[in-house]
Amino acid sequence: MPETMISSKTKTVIIGPERPFTIIGERINPTGRKLLAREMAAGNYERVVNDAIAQVQAGAHMLDVNAGIPLADEPAILAEAIRLVQSVTDVPLSIDSSIIEALESGLAAYEGKALLNSVTGEEERLEIVLPLVKKYGCAVIGISNDETGISEDPDVRFAVAKKIVERAMDYGIPREDVLIDPLVMPIGALRYAGKQVFRIVHRCLTELGVNTCCGASNVSFGLPNRGPLNGTFLAMAMSAGMTSAITNPIEEHIKTAIMAADVMMGHDENCLDWIAANRPPVDPAAAAESGEGRQRREGRRRRG
Amino acid sequence: MPETMISSKTKTVIIGPERPFTIIGERINPTGRKLLAREMAAGNYERVVNDAIAQVQAGAHMLDVNAGIPLADEPAILAEAIRLVQSVTDVPLSIDSSIIEALESGLAAYEGKALLNSVTGEEERLEIVLPLVKKYGCAVIGISNDETGISEDPDVRFAVAKKIVERAMDYGIPREDVLIDPLVMPIGALRYAGKQVFRIVHRCLTELGVNTCCGASNVSFGLPNRGPLNGTFLAMAMSAGMTSAITNPIEEHIKTAIMAADVMMGHDENCLDWIAANRPPVDPAAAAESGEGRQRREGRRRRG
Repeated sequence: MPETMISSKTKTVIIGPERPFTIIGERINPTGRKLLAREMAAGNYERVVNDAIAQVQAGAHMLDVNAGIPLADEPAILAEAIRLVQSVTDVPLSIDSSIIEALESGLAAYEGKALLNSVTGEEERLEIVLPLVKKYGCAVIGISNDETGISEDPDVRFAVAKKIVERAMDYGIPREDVLIDPLVMPIGALRYAGKQVFRIVHRCLTELGVNTCCGASNVSFGLPNRGPLNGTFLAMAMSAGMTSAITNPIEEHIKTAIMAADVMMGHDENCLDWIAANRPPVDPAAAAESGEGRQRREGRRRRG
Repeated sequence: MPETMISSKTKTVIIGPERPFTIIGERINPTGRKLLAREMAAGNYERVVNDAIAQVQAGAHMLDVNAGIPLADEPAILAEAIRLVQSVTDVPLSIDSSIIEALESGLAAYEGKALLNSVTGEEERLEIVLPLVKKYGCAVIGISNDETGISEDPDVRFAVAKKIVERAMDYGIPREDVLIDPLVMPIGALRYAGKQVFRIVHRCLTELGVNTCCGASNVSFGLPNRGPLNGTFLAMAMSAGMTSAITNPIEEHIKTAIMAADVMMGHDENCLDWIAANRPPVDPAAAAESGEGRQRREGRRRRG
């Protein structure tokens, strides 16, 4: 069974099918967040720092850091965001960019063994990103699309995943340092988007012996009441063998579904995390008066 | 792929892995419901009738009817409950008893093709119940335990399931008329209770070609916040191939998880059921005033 170690200077996270699910906080990403984009471009990282702390308090085991802002100096901003996030939290980070210079500058700024997000199966990307992964000794997310786009056939996407893993190994990167992203499509448009992912994840684990990671929220794009859809999708993907996701732990439905699915997979020993997170208040009225209710609600979001 | 047809006089439900999940309402059961037990024993079926209507409104596709009351005339009470339930709803029923005379009297009273709940892998039970199934042409739930009890090894439980299916076929009962109950144990006591069920369900579908059914709520016995545990368990079991469950559709977490999992399995075409159930109110204040809010909430519970 694959075990992927990712670390900060002081903390190591192990991603694997015999472990509790790894939540990678998705919030530090200016895509679709105009205010955050403007602030980051202007050198104001207050929101980045607050998002980092809030996500870790809500149960994130790692954080994804993205600085994709049009016309801004992405390599410099990403490096600065990483330095700041590492100064306020000790969780390992995923360094997220589509620009090679930003990936390299992020890796140079990072202390520990990072997760690089990401490489695709496109020849050009493999040839640029994999040497970087080897040079820094980090792990990498391999996205299962290539020059031909994203196939609707899960077995074609699996073949791309296999190519990425094999190429990484050619560069001397161990297979456990490659996490495959099966690519989650909107189920409102593609009826079998869920089943495709479950199949790719299962094949990646059983045939390639690698861990998997996805951005979960895309599955519910365009649909109402997205929280329970995202949470249910993640739980089902976990039973197929998915081991990590870039998602929002502050969203209660998602956090609860992941915790419940960890119980169902036998990964929450004696259900201690579940019980701690769901302990009923002794006397709700008295608790509210003393402020204990609020503490309990916050306590629910902390892990273990 | 197995398709199990169950019917009332006017309505047929098809249970199968290419269909939306079949919810069998669990509420008409005096076990642990003292008031209901007392009323049924005294010939008062008002609560039975109300529970039947409420569960169907909440989305139950079938109803389980149980009349297990100590020292009462279970065969007569079960038959009367079935007649009354069939007079107020048109969904097919599951006839639930551990007493052979009650099963037979329930079958005699029932109009349509019932689901008989249940037979175990015990020799004595097989020899008594299976001839009844053949005589009435109904379907049956086979529970995966035998004289030796309930094994903690999922492959032993699967072997019991296999024996039940083979025995049924010896009696001329087609395999699609046998639903296997993998037996859900409390996960607070048995860490791998969830994984055991997922494995048995998957093997039943792929190796025996039969549908599965379980009582879901046992999984969370003794734990706090049981709704999300039960709902997440069902969604994960659905992705392993589970096709029906005896559960409580009135519990919002369970209903929502099943609907979300149907979306993820590609069984809610164009997500129409999900969208209908989660349409946001146009103007909450105005809706509340006109009583529309209440109608909408009730509408959420109806299917399709």
